Amino acid sequence: MTITEQTTPISVPRGLKGVVVTDTALGDVRGSEGFYHYREYSAVELAAGRTFEDVWHLMSEGFLPDATQREAFASRTAALRHLPGEVRDALPTIARACTPSGPLAGLRTALSLFGSAAGFRPLYDIDPDARRADALAACAVVPTLLTALHRIGRGEEPVEPRDDLPYAANYLYMLTGQEPRPDRARAVEQYLISTIDHGFNASTFTARVIASTGTDVAACLAGAVGALSGPLHGGAPSRALDALDAIGTPDRIDGWIRRRVLAGERLMGFGHPVYRTEDPRSRMLRGIAESLGGPLVDFAVQVEERAEAILAELKPGRDLHINVEFYAGVVMELCGLPREMFTPTFASARVVGWSANILEQADDSKIIRPLARYVGPSAPRPLPAA
Amino acid sequence: MTITEQTTPISVPRGLKGVVVTDTALGDVRGSEGFYHYREYSAVELAAGRTFEDVWHLMSEGFLPDATQREAFASRTAALRHLPGEVRDALPTIARACTPSGPLAGLRTALSLFGSAAGFRPLYDIDPDARRADALAACAVVPTLLTALHRIGRGEEPVEPRDDLPYAANYLYMLTGQEPRPDRARAVEQYLISTIDHGFNASTFTARVIASTGTDVAACLAGAVGALSGPLHGGAPSRALDALDAIGTPDRIDGWIRRRVLAGERLMGFGHPVYRTEDPRSRMLRGIAESLGGPLVDFAVQVEERAEAILAELKPGRDLHINVEFYAGVVMELCGLPREMFTPTFASARVVGWSANILEQADDSKIIRPLARYVGPSAPRPLPAA
Repeated sequence: MTITEQTTPISVPRGLKGVVVTDTALGDVRGSEGFYHYREYSAVELAAGRTFEDVWHLMSEGFLPDATQREAFASRTAALRHLPGEVRDALPTIARACTPSGPLAGLRTALSLFGSAAGFRPLYDIDPDARRADALAACAVVPTLLTALHRIGRGEEPVEPRDDLPYAANYLYMLTGQEPRPDRARAVEQYLISTIDHGFNASTFTARVIASTGTDVAACLAGAVGALSGPLHGGAPSRALDALDAIGTPDRIDGWIRRRVLAGERLMGFGHPVYRTEDPRSRMLRGIAESLGGPLVDFAVQVEERAEAILAELKPGRDLHINVEFYAGVVMELCGLPREMFTPTFASARVVGWSANILEQADDSKIIRPLARYVGPSAPRPLPAA
Repeated sequence: MTITEQTTPISVPRGLKGVVVTDTALGDVRGSEGFYHYREYSAVELAAGRTFEDVWHLMSEGFLPDATQREAFASRTAALRHLPGEVRDALPTIARACTPSGPLAGLRTALSLFGSAAGFRPLYDIDPDARRADALAACAVVPTLLTALHRIGRGEEPVEPRDDLPYAANYLYMLTGQEPRPDRARAVEQYLISTIDHGFNASTFTARVIASTGTDVAACLAGAVGALSGPLHGGAPSRALDALDAIGTPDRIDGWIRRRVLAGERLMGFGHPVYRTEDPRSRMLRGIAESLGGPLVDFAVQVEERAEAILAELKPGRDLHINVEFYAGVVMELCGLPREMFTPTFASARVVGWSANILEQADDSKIIRPLARYVGPSAPRPLPAA
C-alpha cells in the first residue's frame, strides 16, 4: 500500500442514487424508452429468439456463439452440472438449516462451500480464462443446488442432472423428476433469459464490490445472493401472485384494488424505479402467459386492465404499469414451479449476470473503497473509569 | 416500488475514492493526525484500558458498560459461543472443502449456515433489539467456528468453548486446548480491540451494501468475510512476518530492504493508504510486543529502524512508516497463533465492527443502488441468425 493524497471528500445522494460507479459493456436499461439490452442486443429479442446457453455465452464470452461454439458451450456447461462429493454430502444439513428461510439462504451457503470444494482461487491470482472457468462452474451448479435443496427440504431425493437436456429443461427436470413439456421448458427458458441482467441493482453492485478486492468468484456470488434475499431488493414474483390469490374472483377486483390504493398501500406487481413506460419484460411475459393460456392468465389480464384503469383514475399522471413480477409469477405458476422457488429461479438466471459483472470488475483491479462521514459526538472523549 | 424521477447521472472517481456514501456514529480514522476512534473514544485508549467485551458492548449497544452491564453482557455473549447441532455436524465437510483456501473461506460458509440454523430473519422484518441479538449471536460464534475449522483441518478434535473465560482467553483456549498465559491472552485481547473497526474499508462497505437490501445479518457478514479474503483488501499480518523470515538475520537487513526498494517492490508491512503519520495501531502493537519480549521482537525493531532509515534515504519525502500488519504479526507469533490463523483472528474482531455497521445501516432503510455507465457498442444491433 502506498500513501495517497488526501482529497476533499465528495458528497453524493443517499444510497448512491444517480451515482455512476463504473463503466460497463454488459448492457443497460433505458428506463424512459422501456428498453434494456445485454451487450449490444435487445434482451427481449434474445429471449424471443435464442437459447439460454446462447445468451449465457454472450454474457460470459462476449459474443453470440455460432453453431460449433454453441455445441461446445452446451456440452461444456452440461458437464459442469454435477456436484462434488463434499457439497452433495453437505446438502441435507444445509437444507435442514435453511428450512424456514428457504432455498435462497441455502444457495448462499452451498455456493460458498462449492467455491471452496471446487478450488476457486482469488480473481487477482488467476488469468481471465481461469476466472471464466470458475464462473461457468458456479453458474452451472446453481440449478443443481437449488433443486436439490428444494427436494431435500420436502423429504424427497435430489434428481441427478441430465447432460442431454438444455439448461431450462434440465432445471425443470431436476425440480420435478419429470421431463417437462416443451412449451413449458421454453416459457421458463425465455423468463430465465429475460432475468439474466437488469442494470446495476444492489446484488450486482454487491458482487462487484466484493470482486474489487480480488477474492474468488464464490465469495462474490454468495454476497450477491445475500443481497438478493433482502426485502428491498425486489425480484419476488410470488408477491404479485399472492395478490392475485387474495383478490380471488373477478367481481372482487375493483373493490380490492381501490381499497389498497386509497389506503396508500403498495400494489404488488405495479411500478418500477427505472421504467417510466411499460416494463419490456412484462409485455414479453404476458405474451408467454397468453400462449400457455388458461383461467389464471385470463384473470391476471383482467386484474391488470382494471388496476391500470383505477390507478389512472386515483393517481392521475403517475403512469403506473405492471412490473416484471406480475406475469413472471403467472408464467412460473403455469409451468408448475412451486411458489417458494420463484425467487430462487430468478437467482438461477441472475447468477449469469452477476458472473459477467464479476469478470468485468476483475479486469479493473481497483478496489471499491468509499468514505463515511463521522457524525457522532466529538472525539476523543476521556475514557470513564472501568 | 414507485416510479422515481430520472436525474442526471453523477460521475465520481473510480473505486468511489473520496466519495462519502453514508454518515456514521461508529467512529473515524483521522489519517493526518495518526488517530482513530470507536464512537467518541480513542481506539488505542480502549485497547489499553478495556476488555474486548467492553468495547464490543460499546459498538453494539452504543455506550461503555458499567459493572452490572459488563457482567450481564459477558455472561450473555459467553453463553452464545456454543454451536447449533447442524452447524457442528457440517464443520468437518466445510473444513475438508476449504483445506487449500483456509479457515476464512470456511468461515464464510459456516457463518452463512449458522445464520440459517439460528433462524436469523431479514433486518427489515425485525426490531432493533432482535437485529442486535442476531448480530451478537453471530459475533459470539465466530471464534468457535474459526478454531474448530482450524483444528479439524489439522486432524484434531474441536475444543468446546468455556463460558468462564473472557473472549480472548477463550479464543486461545479453543485454538490450543490449553488455558493461555494471562499476558498472552491480554496481548491478543488488545490486538483484537484495536482491530474491531477502521474506517470504511471494502469489507465494511460490502456489509452495508448487503444490509441496505434488508436481508439478514449472516448474509451481510458472509459477504464481508468474502471481501476481506481478497488480496487487495489488506489485513494480512502474515505477509509482514514472512518478510521478517525472508530477511532472516540482522546482517542481511540492509541488503534485503535496499534490493526490494530499488527494484520498486512493495515492502510488506510498510505504508498505509490513510495514515500519513505512524499508524497508531503499530505504535501500540510495538509496545505490546516489547512487553512480551524475545529475540523476534528485537529483530523486528531492528528491521523497522533500518527500513525507516533506508526508505527516508531512497524515497525522501514519502514519510513511509510501518503499518498495522508489521507488529500485529509479531504479537500473534509471540502469542502462539499459527500463521494461517492471523487473518482469521483479525476477522474474529472485525466481525464486531461489521455488525455495528450493519445495525447502523439497518436504521437507514435506504437501498444502496448506484448506476453503471454503458460503454459498449451502440444498441440494439439486429440479432444474427441463430
